Formats: sequence, structure tokens, C-alpha cells
Amino acid sequence: MASQAEGSSVAADIEAIFHPHSIAVVGASANPDTPGYDYVRSLQQFGYKERIYPVNPKGGEILGLPVFASLRDVSGGIDYVISCIPNAYILDLVGDCAAAGVKALQLFTGRFSETGRADDAALEDRLRQTASEAGVRLIGPNCMGLLYPALGISFRTDMSRKSGPIGFLSQSGNLLFELTHFGESRGLRFSKAISYGNALDLNECDFLEYFAEDAETRVIGAYIEGVRNGRAFIRALRRASSRKPTVVLKGGRTGAGGRTAVSHTAALAGSAAVWDAAVRQSEAIGVDTVEELVDALIACAYMKTPFGMHSGNRFSRPRLAMVGAGGGRSVLTADLSEELGLLVPPLPPDVEAKVAEKAPDLAGWITNPVDQSILAGSGLGGAQVLEWLDESPDIDMVVGNIGEPWAFGRPNGEAIVRRVTERFTGVAEKTKKPFAVVLGPSDYGDEERWRVVSEARDRLVEAGVAVFPSVERAVRTLARLAGHWSRRRA
Amino acid sequence: MASQAEGSSVAADIEAIFHPHSIAVVGASANPDTPGYDYVRSLQQFGYKERIYPVNPKGGEILGLPVFASLRDVSGGIDYVISCIPNAYILDLVGDCAAAGVKALQLFTGRFSETGRADDAALEDRLRQTASEAGVRLIGPNCMGLLYPALGISFRTDMSRKSGPIGFLSQSGNLLFELTHFGESRGLRFSKAISYGNALDLNECDFLEYFAEDAETRVIGAYIEGVRNGRAFIRALRRASSRKPTVVLKGGRTGAGGRTAVSHTAALAGSAAVWDAAVRQSEAIGVDTVEELVDALIACAYMKTPFGMHSGNRFSRPRLAMVGAGGGRSVLTADLSEELGLLVPPLPPDVEAKVAEKAPDLAGWITNPVDQSILAGSGLGGAQVLEWLDESPDIDMVVGNIGEPWAFGRPNGEAIVRRVTERFTGVAEKTKKPFAVVLGPSDYGDEERWRVVSEARDRLVEAGVAVFPSVERAVRTLARLAGHWSRRRA
Repeated sequence: MASQAEGSSVAADIEAIFHPHSIAVVGASANPDTPGYDYVRSLQQFGYKERIYPVNPKGGEILGLPVFASLRDVSGGIDYVISCIPNAYILDLVGDCAAAGVKALQLFTGRFSETGRADDAALEDRLRQTASEAGVRLIGPNCMGLLYPALGISFRTDMSRKSGPIGFLSQSGNLLFELTHFGESRGLRFSKAISYGNALDLNECDFLEYFAEDAETRVIGAYIEGVRNGRAFIRALRRASSRKPTVVLKGGRTGAGGRTAVSHTAALAGSAAVWDAAVRQSEAIGVDTVEELVDALIACAYMKTPFGMHSGNRFSRPRLAMVGAGGGRSVLTADLSEELGLLVPPLPPDVEAKVAEKAPDLAGWITNPVDQSILAGSGLGGAQVLEWLDESPDIDMVVGNIGEPWAFGRPNGEAIVRRVTERFTGVAEKTKKPFAVVLGPSDYGDEERWRVVSEARDRLVEAGVAVFPSVERAVRTLARLAGHWSRRRA
Repeated sequence: MASQAEGSSVAADIEAIFHPHSIAVVGASANPDTPGYDYVRSLQQFGYKERIYPVNPKGGEILGLPVFASLRDVSGGIDYVISCIPNAYILDLVGDCAAAGVKALQLFTGRFSETGRADDAALEDRLRQTASEAGVRLIGPNCMGLLYPALGISFRTDMSRKSGPIGFLSQSGNLLFELTHFGESRGLRFSKAISYGNALDLNECDFLEYFAEDAETRVIGAYIEGVRNGRAFIRALRRASSRKPTVVLKGGRTGAGGRTAVSHTAALAGSAAVWDAAVRQSEAIGVDTVEELVDALIACAYMKTPFGMHSGNRFSRPRLAMVGAGGGRSVLTADLSEELGLLVPPLPPDVEAKVAEKAPDLAGWITNPVDQSILAGSGLGGAQVLEWLDESPDIDMVVGNIGEPWAFGRPNGEAIVRRVTERFTGVAEKTKKPFAVVLGPSDYGDEERWRVVSEARDRLVEAGVAVFPSVERAVRTLARLAGHWSRRRA
């Protein structure tokens, strides 16, 4: 099993790369509007505890650290080098790395094959060859590199400093900013993440292998524009997916997307149909947009899986229940759910019996989804019905909608949002079913509403609840995962 | 043309209903957590300038107004009555209305046919008959009624007090809260809106006719669960749609949705296929979710239409350009656009020539969508390229992504967001093409970011720019409207 042995050795290389005892930033700068400044400052601000060596022929001091003119001037050994210098100097830098015993070189440096020019592509080839001969592993070129909050490693100061369950590999660094910017308030946090650009040496297969083994990673996410070796990729994806939920977003599925990918990472995008088949065969979770990616990662990280999915039971059309919306929204949720292949049955008999006992006047009228406005004034609250639905053997998935557009119109709206949030958190803590809470977006002008919604979201996320900014996105995500769960075999 | 004459007379009735010289709230209450309080308080807070008569047998005073024991005790005439009393008293109320010369009665009062019980349905039948004989027009029952900010009429204090171009008819009152809550910061504002519940008398056809004529309405929106007369509805929808962009969201498209609609407004939902055919024949804009509804309304209200669409020119696959995202996002946007039927061509020759002049180093490398990170440090800004693309004859639709996830990582991030917002606003003011700006969501925990994004959004909305909270939603909306525009005939 040569390939497995090789896989393990690469995983060991990557593990070492994530645990450097010293980091040099070549092309470090005192100008705050440069990447050569960002890398040094990020390491400091994230609390990287070992040695940081800024390198720049100009010398001087950057952020309180003495600047070395060259890697060769640093004594004491360098494990990891970040390059921000122009591509013209890159072969010399590889030589310096070899001389200094550097194990790995990450290149923010770009303008290689992605420019589409022959000389840049030729330089990339020489870079690969030179590094290989020198025994220096490469991350990139044309990438942001490593994020590992637990050890204080980051490429930008405003990534999340909180560690989370998600290991992520991305051919786009900007995508990692977007995931953090749009997902962090919902608990989208990384164990480790890697922006790996043109994938000249270490590539998607290596990182998938690594995350499949990594004890700090529970969920794997990937943004991939192209793969070098289709068979190896399918093998790596299948292995990762058999260990941990693995969500993959493919860039370059169309002619225009493929053309754009070439100018981005020089990736050869390949056929969308082949990709889809690979994802399906691997039993990974395929998504098509950043929104879907965020939602699927949140779901995998924070939702229960139904029916002992890990042991491979199948189920076909899961039965969804929802509580906490007005009439129109209830109707529309039922429509969307059924259109996406979920079942939305009427209230199960056990729940119907409890309703009849507590609020006889509503029996036979309210249905599922539970129209909150019918409950108003009945003495029966939505959270109570949600608990009953969660306990019912005839319901597989539950959505709880906080319903703040309605609540904020009441005189005690903020208290309602807080109370419902607490009740839903209680259900989430007990449930054995996939449970999605809908809250937000807090995407409106009123500061007080923004604050109440943000605090409620924080509370839910702290409790480990999967929160979605709209009913649509909650239902689409449940349908996507239902499809995934139902395809999984033992 | 009896039906047209009748149509006009109904439109005149509705126009009168929207301009009452006095409003009585029957079942008014001093308890702030009741609709009988909300209606009185909303009229006061929205600045309704004419007489408000709270009615309640208990008498006393509510919000500074004397309470009348009965409608019959009010002297001076009542144009419009809002009912919040239980259904058991409703026939007596109709009698009181007739005696007091009331023209229209709106029933928040529910529990009629929507409960599914024979006695409630029978009561509804008697209500219809009694009101018809008494010459009192009904809105509802089981509805929130009228919103007309210009005249100070509202059913809830937290609806928007700003008037806008959108006339909306809805079988769900809660949906109107949601549209305001989720859409107002993007400029989703109503000329007038009507929540009409069970549609016992005035119905969707009447309101469509009315909005088609209403000078204050430029765009029509509708949420409909069921129609009483399919042919009449298609006629009314076609007439409305021929006059103004008309966006319709259908609730009850599936078995579960239909069942839920029955318990909501007793609507008979009918077949989804028949509905789709009706929307297509009418050349209305059909949507399936609240998010799509909000986005389509914003687009119709604030976007230019391409190619003199009003005179009926056709175009097939429109060519989209986007600026302002990183590489991964650019690739994904190209993919999604093409998957939805839009074309994403490379940079047109005229734009390519301008790039070659200003930044020779990038010529032949950057493509469309324009990868912002390639521009970094080139001296060529994204807003400049956006202007060129907008001016190019080879581009039909333009998306400008503010790109705040990237900007906030820079030392002067807030200034970048403000500057890009100003530049994009300038493009929006000049363009003759559909132009979507992407900003937000401001759906994250950091207060300063929320403030910067909210202020930027306010600026764009003030300038009449169509803003979308994600690239995905912008592209989906452009694709939807492109389909609509291309189907329209002269």
C-alpha cells in the first residue's frame, strides 16, 4: 500500500508544518497596508508564542521585532517561511530556505501560471523543481497560507481567534475571509484552515488526508477549483468522507467559471458531470454557492444526525415539523419543504392529543407547520408544541423559528425574543433529531433590534445550536443533508 | 364590458376605503398587548389626521380618546370600521355598520371557515350575505387590513412610515411584517398594502385592478393562497402586469402547503401547474419564497430595465459583468450566472483596451468577473473597471460587489467601504442597465462593522440603488428578471 504509506508521511509533514517552532516572514514590511505587515502583525495578535523573524534587505525594526536582511542571517533554525516578495526573487529564496534547513515555504507571492503567460508558467515549473530538489515543501504559490488559532497562526488579524470543529482547505484565500465574515456569528470556526492557491506541491489530496486524521477536526470543508489527479482525489475524498462529514464547493463548473479559475489559480477545472459523480461516489456533501457552504458546515458542525446515521441506516423522505411562524410563512415553508423532497405531515396523533387536552379549541384546526398566530391567546405556546413535536416518533427533523418580525411588533418584543430563544435552546439541548433554529438576519437599520438578535444568536451558538438566517436556508440545508444521509451506506 | 365597468366601480370603492374621513375600532382596548390597542395606537403614531373612534361597551378612555359603547353612539358619520371583537358578535356589528352608514368593515376578527368547522363556515356565509344586503363592503375576515403611510393608516406601529413605490396585496398579515422587517433597510416600502385574509368580499382581483390604476403604485406585489375565480384572476393579473411589473408569490403549491393554507385562510389552493401557467400567460413575475419576493420587488422598484423593455424588445441571454470580489467568489459567480442562463463573457474589447492602457501588466490576465485581488497594487481600481464595463456595448447587466469581507481586513477598511459605496452610487446614477450592488448581510456580531455596512446601505438606498445581501441573491434575481424581460412581448 505505497500510496497509503505516502499519504501518512505527507500527513506527518503537514502536522509538522502546522507546528512550527519559528516562522520567518520574507518581504516583511512596516507599511500597514501590505501583506508583509499583515503576516507579522497577525502572528503577534493571535498570540503565536514562538519566534517570529521578519526578513527584508532594508533591515530595521517591524512591530518591535528586529528585521534580518536575509534568511541566511537568522541563527537558531527556521521551520516555516512565508514569502511576500516578487516572483523574480523566488528561486533565490528557495536556495536560502534550503541553506537554512527550512521545512516548508508558503508563497503569498503570485504571478505564476495564473497570469496565463509562458514565462510565468516556466518560472513556476522551475520553482517546483528547485524546491523538490532542495527538500522544501511548498504551500501555494498565490495563496494566504495557514490559519491555526489554537497556536496563534493566522494570515490576517480579523480572522476568528476562536477554534472550532471545521478543518478547511481552500484554493481561495478571500473565501476564508468571507466564511469568517459571514459565518462566524453563527459559530463557523476553524480547527485549522489552509489557503493553498495553485497547489504546486502540497495539494487538495494531501490536505484531505490530513484533516481526515486530524483529531482537532470534526467536519471537513473544501473549496476546490481544479484537481491534478482525479483518481487520487476521489480516493482521498472518499476516505475523508468516510471518517467525517465533508462538504465540498467546486469552482469552475461552467465555461465562464473555468476561464475565471484559470486566471485565479491556473486550475484546470474539468467537467462538472465528472465532478458531481466523484462527489456522489465519495458520499461527500456537494454544494454550489458560498451560502450553501456556510449552511452545510454549520449543520454538520452543530446538528444531530437522524436515526443513527453513523451506523449506516437509511431513511427516505424525512418528516419535518416547524413551529414559530405566521400563517403565510407556514404555508410557504410546507411548500418549499415538499418541493425539496421532505415530508410535512399534519400534527402526529400524539401531539394532536396533547393539543386537544391543553387547548381543546384548537384541536383539529392547527396543523404542521404550526401557525403561531392561531396559538395567540390560547394559553398554548409555540415552544411547548415544539417540544411535543420533538418528542413525537412521527417527526424526524424540527425547525424552530424565533419569529422576531412578529415579536418586535409586540410591546414586550425583546423579552419575547429572549424567552423563545431560551425555550428553543432547551429543546436543542435535549433533542436527538436534526434541529434548526431560524433567527435573523439582523440585516436592518434599527440598532436595538440588531442588538437583541445578535445577543440571542450568541446565546444559541454558545449552546451549540445550528442557527440559520432564514427559513428558506434552514429548509434547503435540511433537505440537502437528508439527501446526503439517505445516500450513505453502512 | 360589464366586467370592466364593475372593475372600475370596485376600484373606486377601494380608493374611497383608503381615504376614510373617520375610522372606528370596535373592540378597542387599553391593554397594550391586544390588537384592539394596536389599531388605535398605530393610527395615532402614523399621524392619521381625521377622527378615530374607539368602541367598547366598557366605555372609558383609550390613549386619550373617549370610548363609545356602540357604533350607534357615534355621531358625525363613520367611513371605515375595524373589528377586533369575537366572531359571535359579528352579525350584530354588520347591523350597526349599516345603521351608521359605514361603507367598509375590516375584520381582524377570525375563526370563520379557516377553522374547518361547519358552524364557523356557516357563520361566514351569513356574514357575507348580511353585509351584501346591508351594502357594507368587507375586507377579510381574518386579516390585518390596510396600510397607507401617506395618510397615517397602519395596523401596527412598527411598519415603515415611509411611502414607497410598491402596492402589495397579501392573504397573510404576518408576511407584511416580514417584508418590512427584512426589506425596509433595502428600500422595500409600500405605497399602500392590504392584508385581506379570507377574501370573503373584496378579493385579489379587486386589489389587482386597484393597484393597476393607482397613481401612487409603480410596482405590484402579491401573496396569494387561493383564488375564487381562475378566469377573472388571470384577466386581472394580465391587466396589472401589462401596466406595472407585478410579482406574485403563491402559497399552497403542494399538498402540505395546501392543507396549511386551508387552516390559514380557508383558501382552496388549486393546482401548481395551473397557477404557473396563469402567471406565465399573464407575464407576471412568479417567485417561490419570501427571499425571492423581497429581491424581485427591490429589483423592479430600483433597477433599470434593459433594452427599452417597456416597448417590448426581446433579448435572449443577457451578458453579465461583475466587479469587486476575490478570485474564488469571481469563479463561483461566473458558475452560478451561467447555470442560471446568463452569459459571463470575457472582458469586452473596449474594456480590454482601456485596461491595457492603464495597467499593461494586467492585460490578458484579468477577466470577467473581475478578480479584485489581481487589481491590488496595480493602480487600477475596481470601480474604474466597473464604469468601463457599464459603458461597454457588449455588457447588458452589471453587478458591483462592495466586498466588505476583504475591505475590513485592511487598516482603512471603513474608508474603503465608504469610498467604494460612493463610486458605485455614481455608476448607478448614470447607468441605463440593470445594476445590482452587493453589500452585507450586516449579520454579524461586530457593532462597528454593522454600523459601517448599515450606513453604506442607507446611502445606496437613498440614491435609489438596488442592494442585495449576497452575490447569490443578486445573480438569481437578475436571472429571474432576465427571463421575465425576455418573455415579454410588445
